[in-house]
Amino acid sequence: MCKKKATFKFKVHYHQVDQMGIMHHAQYVYFLEQARIQWLENHGVRYAALEKKGVLLPVVSLSIDYKRPLHFDDSFFCHLSLEKFKGSLVEFSYQIEDKESNILSTAKTSLVFVNATTRRAMKCPEELMAIFSD
Amino acid sequence: MCKKKATFKFKVHYHQVDQMGIMHHAQYVYFLEQARIQWLENHGVRYAALEKKGVLLPVVSLSIDYKRPLHFDDSFFCHLSLEKFKGSLVEFSYQIEDKESNILSTAKTSLVFVNATTRRAMKCPEELMAIFSD
Amino acid sequence: MCKKKATFKFKVHYHQVDQMGIMHHAQYVYFLEQARIQWLENHGVRYAALEKKGVLLPVVSLSIDYKRPLHFDDSFFCHLSLEKFKGSLVEFSYQIEDKESNILSTAKTSLVFVNATTRRAMKCPEELMAIFSD
Amino acid sequence: MCKKKATFKFKVHYHQVDQMGIMHHAQYVYFLEQARIQWLENHGVRYAALEKKGVLLPVVSLSIDYKRPLHFDDSFFCHLSLEKFKGSLVEFSYQIEDKESNILSTAKTSLVFVNATTRRAMKCPEELMAIFSD
Repeated sequence: MCKKKATFKFKVHYHQVDQMGIMHHAQYVYFLEQARIQWLENHGVRYAALEKKGVLLPVVSLSIDYKRPLHFDDSFFCHLSLEKFKGSLVEFSYQIEDKESNILSTAKTSLVFVNATTRRAMKCPEELMAIFSD
Repeated sequence: MCKKKATFKFKVHYHQVDQMGIMHHAQYVYFLEQARIQWLENHGVRYAALEKKGVLLPVVSLSIDYKRPLHFDDSFFCHLSLEKFKGSLVEFSYQIEDKESNILSTAKTSLVFVNATTRRAMKCPEELMAIFSD
Repeated sequence: MCKKKATFKFKVHYHQVDQMGIMHHAQYVYFLEQARIQWLENHGVRYAALEKKGVLLPVVSLSIDYKRPLHFDDSFFCHLSLEKFKGSLVEFSYQIEDKESNILSTAKTSLVFVNATTRRAMKCPEELMAIFSD
Repeated sequence: MCKKKATFKFKVHYHQVDQMGIMHHAQYVYFLEQARIQWLENHGVRYAALEKKGVLLPVVSLSIDYKRPLHFDDSFFCHLSLEKFKGSLVEFSYQIEDKESNILSTAKTSLVFVNATTRRAMKCPEELMAIFSD
């Protein structure tokens, strides 16, 4: 199911690196977010527009395994994969690789569709069903 | 005018330090913000409550001079001073010093009261006048 | 084993909150780091000094479950617990609670002692054994 | 002098936006840094390589004027201009514009070449003279 996978290329910025000389472990979280938002956009959905319509998609769980570090100015690939979609829940997995396809990190995030007004979980909006479903 | 000056103590956190081994220059901006918010709170104003009432106080200009660096785990003092208050404009200056009173950095910020709905400049709310005025 | 648990109080800063009006999910990672570093310091170990001696303690895995959001200016408690210590590996768990002891988030991190020069895993330095062991 | 000016395109990421719904004022600092580093790279200099050779280029002063806000997912242009180069000092100015060439912000930064070992100001390395000079 090709539409459920995508690869994004990123670069480590100077301010993201700590005094160990490696990308700080919190900074990965921002790249995962960018990957998801870009993935949505590739499917015709602007997350900015979604929020304006009152649909939020916050992260409810997150896990990252750091295998090899990234350094300043390193380019890397983030392979995103939609793992699960059921009701209001969406799960993505991620594999971060360098140019030589060495796996540097793996990650998972779960997100839930939330009504911006009630702040309660809601079903995936109808217009997004096609993107998340098989 | 003692109420227009205040000193806050902070500590450099691990993630704020870059690979030069010094606090990244952008991180000062967050401490200045914390100092302002704490200063308001010391005068009985919670900025969180202010925003809920529809009053925003965004930064419209910022300048920082970095004289000596800060390192991980360093404690430092931020001396805040209200420099100017006129209409919708508020100006603060800051002096960052170490424990031995060496000046490490100086900074200035200008902020403007903004109506959250119209997103236009507004006069300082009446209840805050006493805090900002002589 | 009282020495293996500790509680730290934090506050959500303005810049840590996103446009949903809640603390961004990446920001929790910084608080977990602060809790660990403070915990070490409470046991007489300054992490800054440790790194200067050539001992690094990077995070090798991280997981967070977000149950209820935090908002700007919220105070919260981070209950840290040393869960496991074996060879070069240290595991901490965290429970984030509000003032009413509602559980807001739970988290786990694994860290590994690393030799700063070789960048390879090393055993816990002798002088830290007492802190991490039973 | 065409080589002294350059334009870079950026996008506002989700995590960079605060609860006012605008890009947080500290986040501009990271984009200015990216613009400088990209500008150097366009002239054949990788800042990562420079630091490895023991040459640091920290920011010693910074000023930003915020005229109009940026929002999540906004694209914007950062026009960088090398304003001054003398001895160890380099000054850049920046103009941030939207697609319609409205000026959103202006900024200036001064940087100083620093010897990584002595942590003292040093002259611009010989191999960079051609880039910074007329």
